[in-house]
Amino acid sequence: MDWKRLMFGRPLKDREEGGRKVVVWQGLSVLAPDALSSVAYGTQEILIVLSTAGMAVLWFSLPISAVIVLLLAFLVFNYRQIIQAYPNGGGAYVIGRDTLGAWSGVLAGTALLIDYTLTVAVSVTAGVAALVSAFPGLLHWTVILSVLFTAFIAVINLRGVKESANLFTIPTYLFIAMVLIMVAVGAVKPDPTTPPLHAYVAPPVGLIVGPLLVLRAFSSGSSALTGIEAISNGVPIFAQPSQRRARTTLLFLGLLLGAMFLGTSVIAFRYGIVPNNQVTVLQQLAYRLFGHGIFFYLLSFVTMAILAIAANTSFAGFPQLASIMARDQWMPRMFLARGDRLVYQNGILVLAAFAVLLIIIFKGNTNALIPLYAVGVYMSFTIAMVSLVKKRCQEKDAPGRLTTIVTASLGAVLTTVVVLISIVSKFTQGAWIVVVAIPLLIMALRAVRRHYRVVADILRMNDLSEKPEEKHLVVVVPMASINYMTMSTLSMALSMNAHEIIALHIATSPERERLLQERWEQWDPDPRIKFVAVQSQYRSVLRPMVRYIDHLTNLFARGRVLVVIPEIVVGRRWQNILHNHMAVALEAILVFRREVSVTVVPFHLPSASPQENNPPRN
Amino acid sequence: MDWKRLMFGRPLKDREEGGRKVVVWQGLSVLAPDALSSVAYGTQEILIVLSTAGMAVLWFSLPISAVIVLLLAFLVFNYRQIIQAYPNGGGAYVIGRDTLGAWSGVLAGTALLIDYTLTVAVSVTAGVAALVSAFPGLLHWTVILSVLFTAFIAVINLRGVKESANLFTIPTYLFIAMVLIMVAVGAVKPDPTTPPLHAYVAPPVGLIVGPLLVLRAFSSGSSALTGIEAISNGVPIFAQPSQRRARTTLLFLGLLLGAMFLGTSVIAFRYGIVPNNQVTVLQQLAYRLFGHGIFFYLLSFVTMAILAIAANTSFAGFPQLASIMARDQWMPRMFLARGDRLVYQNGILVLAAFAVLLIIIFKGNTNALIPLYAVGVYMSFTIAMVSLVKKRCQEKDAPGRLTTIVTASLGAVLTTVVVLISIVSKFTQGAWIVVVAIPLLIMALRAVRRHYRVVADILRMNDLSEKPEEKHLVVVVPMASINYMTMSTLSMALSMNAHEIIALHIATSPERERLLQERWEQWDPDPRIKFVAVQSQYRSVLRPMVRYIDHLTNLFARGRVLVVIPEIVVGRRWQNILHNHMAVALEAILVFRREVSVTVVPFHLPSASPQENNPPRN
Repeated sequence: MDWKRLMFGRPLKDREEGGRKVVVWQGLSVLAPDALSSVAYGTQEILIVLSTAGMAVLWFSLPISAVIVLLLAFLVFNYRQIIQAYPNGGGAYVIGRDTLGAWSGVLAGTALLIDYTLTVAVSVTAGVAALVSAFPGLLHWTVILSVLFTAFIAVINLRGVKESANLFTIPTYLFIAMVLIMVAVGAVKPDPTTPPLHAYVAPPVGLIVGPLLVLRAFSSGSSALTGIEAISNGVPIFAQPSQRRARTTLLFLGLLLGAMFLGTSVIAFRYGIVPNNQVTVLQQLAYRLFGHGIFFYLLSFVTMAILAIAANTSFAGFPQLASIMARDQWMPRMFLARGDRLVYQNGILVLAAFAVLLIIIFKGNTNALIPLYAVGVYMSFTIAMVSLVKKRCQEKDAPGRLTTIVTASLGAVLTTVVVLISIVSKFTQGAWIVVVAIPLLIMALRAVRRHYRVVADILRMNDLSEKPEEKHLVVVVPMASINYMTMSTLSMALSMNAHEIIALHIATSPERERLLQERWEQWDPDPRIKFVAVQSQYRSVLRPMVRYIDHLTNLFARGRVLVVIPEIVVGRRWQNILHNHMAVALEAILVFRREVSVTVVPFHLPSASPQENNPPRN
Repeated sequence: MDWKRLMFGRPLKDREEGGRKVVVWQGLSVLAPDALSSVAYGTQEILIVLSTAGMAVLWFSLPISAVIVLLLAFLVFNYRQIIQAYPNGGGAYVIGRDTLGAWSGVLAGTALLIDYTLTVAVSVTAGVAALVSAFPGLLHWTVILSVLFTAFIAVINLRGVKESANLFTIPTYLFIAMVLIMVAVGAVKPDPTTPPLHAYVAPPVGLIVGPLLVLRAFSSGSSALTGIEAISNGVPIFAQPSQRRARTTLLFLGLLLGAMFLGTSVIAFRYGIVPNNQVTVLQQLAYRLFGHGIFFYLLSFVTMAILAIAANTSFAGFPQLASIMARDQWMPRMFLARGDRLVYQNGILVLAAFAVLLIIIFKGNTNALIPLYAVGVYMSFTIAMVSLVKKRCQEKDAPGRLTTIVTASLGAVLTTVVVLISIVSKFTQGAWIVVVAIPLLIMALRAVRRHYRVVADILRMNDLSEKPEEKHLVVVVPMASINYMTMSTLSMALSMNAHEIIALHIATSPERERLLQERWEQWDPDPRIKFVAVQSQYRSVLRPMVRYIDHLTNLFARGRVLVVIPEIVVGRRWQNILHNHMAVALEAILVFRREVSVTVVPFHLPSASPQENNPPRN
């Protein structure tokens, strides 16, 4: 199929799977965009929650941001220990499975699969929001753009991303630079052109604000830290000494993310930015600081690009995790299959499908997706840190062991608190979906694993003394009339060592039966073939045919019934609708019969034009 | 499948196809609703067109309606002659084919197929409009209601409508009675409560109105006569003397339709009804005459019911015509297949699909569909009347022969004029779609017929001395590992009289190949089976498998290659996603190879619960 090659490129051989190793600055552009891009919506999500209680409480964003940056520091510290402890990376599923046991792994894996899907949905919709901020005319097309965007990233990944590191460097560093410039200018620029925020601090609500609202804002803001685990998952992609390089990269990521996130919150407060549906907070800031010029438009594009890269990270992570879990038989085997381009295509397709579903259900609204986001991520953080604690407890002689145990325990407690806060404060806003989805998904994984176990037990052959045995074959050839196709099918039947060959005709009227019977006797094809006509009481010929075959199966209880059916292969695809594909229909019914097999004998029609005489070879 | 039986009822045997014959009053309720129901939108469509030029020209609806009633008289007269000439009915396709030749039949058939589809779309949307007139809150749901309505009628027809005659009697006669009562009351009631029409006759446009507009209004109104051919198509359903009964029924239909249509136009004018989007003209009249009471609501429901019956008529006509044309090999064979309920299910499904498509494209707006309507109908009228002329010309001694020839010729000229008027005056409003669709459809039918001819030529066996011949079989059994499924498949292979049996393993790594080879030698299943391992350069195992099979085909040029593949049959449907259905995938590729057949050997897994041990028997 040529369109396939055009879209996905030529098939790759196994040995073509390559991989240069990366150093720190490259590692940052490959593994950090997921975390860094959160700056594009982190502050905004805090402000959106707070603004529901009025302008007066927007200053709460400052202490909340500060707490989140503290949390970040904790996570970075602990994840640097995780890099030390698990040099092969692997993420919370592998770490949890190997340290705490299979079920902890499954819990982490489930949380991560949901998280990857949400990352795609959140990043894509936030990216489209950045685009829409620059081009408000696109507002109406948000959902469609988001879906197309997801499909585009999926197609790119189905081709296989080989040169991703280089491709991603420019937008990543450009985004970092632009946000930091904005923060710097916003902090020092003497005179905000708009009235300063205290103008908004009118006291109808005053400074008293419900704790639930603060927790909710905190939970929204904590989504800015999603993705910081990526570096610890990807340790092996760093050049030697890979652990040190990964730790350095993580440290840089922590510093940059902290500065960018806190900086954005501070200047957003200073400029009295109020979130709205049309223009994102980041774009509003760019507009206030640099006007409606090149900086504004460039930032919109760069934001969109880094969010696309963040979504892209999930398209690497999800299929990888699904394949690891499929190898452990928790997920369907199809996630193990790598396609011609050496990518786990089914993982990519399933991820894209679910992300698109989320985008459509939540109407492309990032803000509506955020309540679902933090639960899964922080759950996997917790499992990773509990694993670290357990691992270090088992080792008696690791350096700085006690410090790690204490800080990681504290980290685990903190992340658990974030999970609880997210569930409680946002339960009705969508967190319940995740709370319901995780146990359901775990039950599904359990059923999958049980099925594979049962099948393996049934198929396993311990006793090699059992050998395949010949059985009596009864061959049935359905036949509507006597023609070349019938002859070809009967040839096939004769080539088999059948105990009995039955040419079966389902007669819709006694006259037709008589006519065919006469023609058969005239033809007299072979003494081994027996002509049987069955009168149909129904219009459908399938029903009496299946009934007759069932009858045969009972008759030859020790043998096997083989139905040999011709299938017309047409020269042009549209001509398929002109033929009743009885072979397909009959096979679909007969596959449920034990001891009945179906042979399909293709009968090729020459096509109209000579080029088409050779049907596609793949 | 139980849902199928629940939805469509138990399968019917051939002999259960019954049929009581009908008399005049029943015939009217079975065959006339399509025509009678046009009263529900005929006048309205004229007024909609005229109202675009202002209120002053609404009086034009009176002469236009008069001309249409004259046309009706002509058509009734001629169709009574057609009943005389073609006692077996059959409609324009059969009449045209038998009298004028195959291509005239195809033209009429094409026009009719389009017309049936439009009848469904127009009737359903007009029916929903009647409902919406009574319940304005439903206005927003017009499209969805229309689609559901169509689906409902389709399901009813898939069950098979046996008792239709009785079911349809009440709404049909109630509709006739209510419209006639309305006309009578409207004509005699002395004092219209609203200002009389001359209040509207302000002279900004004056009485000068463009001829194009008049023609357009006429064309819209002429859609009221669609469906009057139904009685002549259905002559055989009348009890003896069927021709006389049919002619009487047609006469009654003509009188009733004329009175109802002209009456509605007159009183609509008298009461100064102006068409609008919310309430149909008929409902507006009911409201003016009888207020917002029981008559108004009853009329809404009865109107909807008779329009549903009209749509239902197409669900009988389209599949019937498609099956006749499929028998003549103009349409795909699938339209010939009758399902368990003895109905032409494919015709019903295709009709429903296209009607739904039209409803969605035209947003459930009857008025937007009308421009497409008249062309096809009047084209088939023309062909029927030309056929009548030709038939009577050939007969030398029929009574009243000359009169018939003259009036039918005149009728043919008139209907041709209507076709031309409809095309010209409404070309840009939608008539172009039909003008494009008819030739395209004819080309498609031609391609279908040609394909069937070619296939028949290829398959036809004139020389019965040719007999099926035994050929050397090479059997290939793909194998991933040695287990009970492999053994069952190899048993099947051994049961065939194969020249050679190859157990083919596609190895993804040299180690796995070595291990399997060792285990095979240990097993040593049968000396006739040869173990072959092929090293795969690709991830996909299908590609090297197909390549190897192609290689075999070339090697055994005189023989046949048979691939025997196991297919796991799971106990529960969802478990299907847990297995790679290689049999299906391989079959889809190999069917394009000449001389390669595929045998699928089902391997049944026991299901978890004991009831499920017997997989569904159909």
